[in-house]
Amino acid sequence: MDDWILEPSVHSLNTVNPVRETVSSIKLPTDFPKPTYSLALGDPSYYPDFAAHSFVVDAAVEALRSGQGNGYTDSLGYGPARETLARAYSYDNIRLTKDDVIIDIGGTGAIHTILQVFLNPGDNILISSPGFPLYKTMAQNLNAEAITYNLKPYSNWEVDLEDLERKVTPRTKMIVVVNPCNPCGSVFSKEHLMDILNWAEKHHVCILADEVYHGMTFGKPHYPLGSLTDTVPVFTVGALSKIFLVPGWRCGWVLIYDKYNKCEKYRPAINKIKNMLLHPAPFIMQAIPKIYENLPENYFAEVMQKVKERAEVVKNKLADVAALNTGSPEGSLYCMVAIDFINMDVKSSVEFAQKLAQEEGVVIMPAEAFLSHSAFRIVLCHPIHVIEECMDRIKSFIQRHTV
Amino acid sequence: MDDWILEPSVHSLNTVNPVRETVSSIKLPTDFPKPTYSLALGDPSYYPDFAAHSFVVDAAVEALRSGQGNGYTDSLGYGPARETLARAYSYDNIRLTKDDVIIDIGGTGAIHTILQVFLNPGDNILISSPGFPLYKTMAQNLNAEAITYNLKPYSNWEVDLEDLERKVTPRTKMIVVVNPCNPCGSVFSKEHLMDILNWAEKHHVCILADEVYHGMTFGKPHYPLGSLTDTVPVFTVGALSKIFLVPGWRCGWVLIYDKYNKCEKYRPAINKIKNMLLHPAPFIMQAIPKIYENLPENYFAEVMQKVKERAEVVKNKLADVAALNTGSPEGSLYCMVAIDFINMDVKSSVEFAQKLAQEEGVVIMPAEAFLSHSAFRIVLCHPIHVIEECMDRIKSFIQRHTV
Repeated sequence: MDDWILEPSVHSLNTVNPVRETVSSIKLPTDFPKPTYSLALGDPSYYPDFAAHSFVVDAAVEALRSGQGNGYTDSLGYGPARETLARAYSYDNIRLTKDDVIIDIGGTGAIHTILQVFLNPGDNILISSPGFPLYKTMAQNLNAEAITYNLKPYSNWEVDLEDLERKVTPRTKMIVVVNPCNPCGSVFSKEHLMDILNWAEKHHVCILADEVYHGMTFGKPHYPLGSLTDTVPVFTVGALSKIFLVPGWRCGWVLIYDKYNKCEKYRPAINKIKNMLLHPAPFIMQAIPKIYENLPENYFAEVMQKVKERAEVVKNKLADVAALNTGSPEGSLYCMVAIDFINMDVKSSVEFAQKLAQEEGVVIMPAEAFLSHSAFRIVLCHPIHVIEECMDRIKSFIQRHTV
Repeated sequence: MDDWILEPSVHSLNTVNPVRETVSSIKLPTDFPKPTYSLALGDPSYYPDFAAHSFVVDAAVEALRSGQGNGYTDSLGYGPARETLARAYSYDNIRLTKDDVIIDIGGTGAIHTILQVFLNPGDNILISSPGFPLYKTMAQNLNAEAITYNLKPYSNWEVDLEDLERKVTPRTKMIVVVNPCNPCGSVFSKEHLMDILNWAEKHHVCILADEVYHGMTFGKPHYPLGSLTDTVPVFTVGALSKIFLVPGWRCGWVLIYDKYNKCEKYRPAINKIKNMLLHPAPFIMQAIPKIYENLPENYFAEVMQKVKERAEVVKNKLADVAALNTGSPEGSLYCMVAIDFINMDVKSSVEFAQKLAQEEGVVIMPAEAFLSHSAFRIVLCHPIHVIEECMDRIKSFIQRHTV
């Protein structure tokens, strides 16, 4: 007889990624006669054209070799790096200091810290659909909820403000706004961002601005939310991950834009959480001042030119496919393609993705993986000839499945 | 009128480090006439004699330069590193596979993952006094409790098994055993570890074996708890941090010793938590196979010889001080010195530490910082002449305060 009772905690079992099963149902055939491709992996470092630049890697190697970054540091992050980030992300309306910057373990860690201090059990945050399921997973871990609001697929994935109005509750603590947008590839106009800020002001809801793709546009200006308001507290999440093409370095940050100190009580709470979970590797943080100092003026333009070329291929190749709408991708590393199933014999983007993988050897991420439907996301990082080949296969697939 | 209601979550405010105030009350004078020293900082990388060795740093630089470790990887950790660790920490009684190894964000992250899956609100873990307050902070974050059991200061800091018996409750999920011991510098005998295992078996309590100082002894064998039992599930926490003198690299691990798979339900729960919080930097994990492959045979002996020399200085210098008892330090990087206040005009180790800092310019960590009392911890990493000087000052202090 063995009566050890060994049951994991309820909240750990609730820490579910809601789209994991969907994603794992999309399988490439084992014996496909041509090369197979995945346009699903949102990790730029995986693609040869998007390798980290040497000014980034050199800065980390130098810090590692110095021997000064092997130990513990301030649990809110290495001071000079926080100063660099405060300078880099200060705007005309608001100057950040080191104290407004917390360096965290990736963008993921930064989001986790914010949700830890904002959410009591039963509270909720509003997240976009399509959007990032991690927010839902983390909210569930805290016995809280992530409620989705719609983005409008045929209006360049702008926020459906009427839907927001329907979804907000008295327990809503934050709205998450991802801009430039993963997964949609959209970049919001200043006017649209002002509409969102006015909505937040009206409902007294703070903003979590997920700006992990800060400045990554094809030319359209990116307005950081912190630069547009004095009165709505904005907690901005950034990271080295995507802007410097090193997601594995696990170094992100929280920037607190709160001119009138409405959120002063959150600061000691953040300290407590960070004293528990600590900081990313100090030598990586030590690289930050050097990285920003050595940042070539045309760095983002060069990186984004490559993404834009790929977006153009997708747009041009799919322009004459009636069932698909690429919209006008404007930034980040993605294009979200809306599907109209009306004349097709497949009826969901999951089915679309499953059959496309089996029949054409191309993996795309269905919108269900982003808490949405009737669309799919393409990562714009493969070599251009691969993207061309994949678009041709998608076109064949659509033709074959149009009834 | 401004009626934004902005209150941080209750659990974030409960994420208290119970000893922070104690620690910050110990201040060096600003105008001390001689050099001042802190024997309190438990970060070996800070001390010139304990810099990371080149086979460790070179492995990380090589991985960083390769460009293959900048992206995301398996959320349980980089596969080949998990295989290396499985081989390194398999024992005659039990062979680990990659699936028994989770690489986490430092020892801290590893502990956090285990507590997340073990503790429901209202549950408790047993931790030692003296011990590591982080466990208490993390338990409180989960609305659970950390209950302290005593180590015996005059029996080489062995576990007081009778006290354990008094402290266990029906909601006790784990006992934390730190060996080699931070803060006590002790290394448990095989017999004593068997007593602890028998106790755990009797109460059906799993073990969290904090073996972050694995193998770091002055010669006495270190018996990993996983090597001594087939029937008590042992979750061992290790890390690169202390054994390779790079605590800032934030790379630790959980090893699951569970021969009869009693804890099988915990594995998917761990996966869920790790899918949320992800892994440490992949290039650091990629260094692990190389580090273990290139590990010089005499590496630990060399490092620990330096620690032992410092421990001898402390022991010899304090041997004739009746109020102090150094015991016989046996490993880790610390010595815990018990204080007998009976003939002294200071009455607590906090007061002792505060006055020692003010009067002698020497900072030591009072046992209150480790949830205990009547003792202090010395870090054995400073150059020997500094330790000698500090011991002389401690002796002067004791003389002056003996009544």
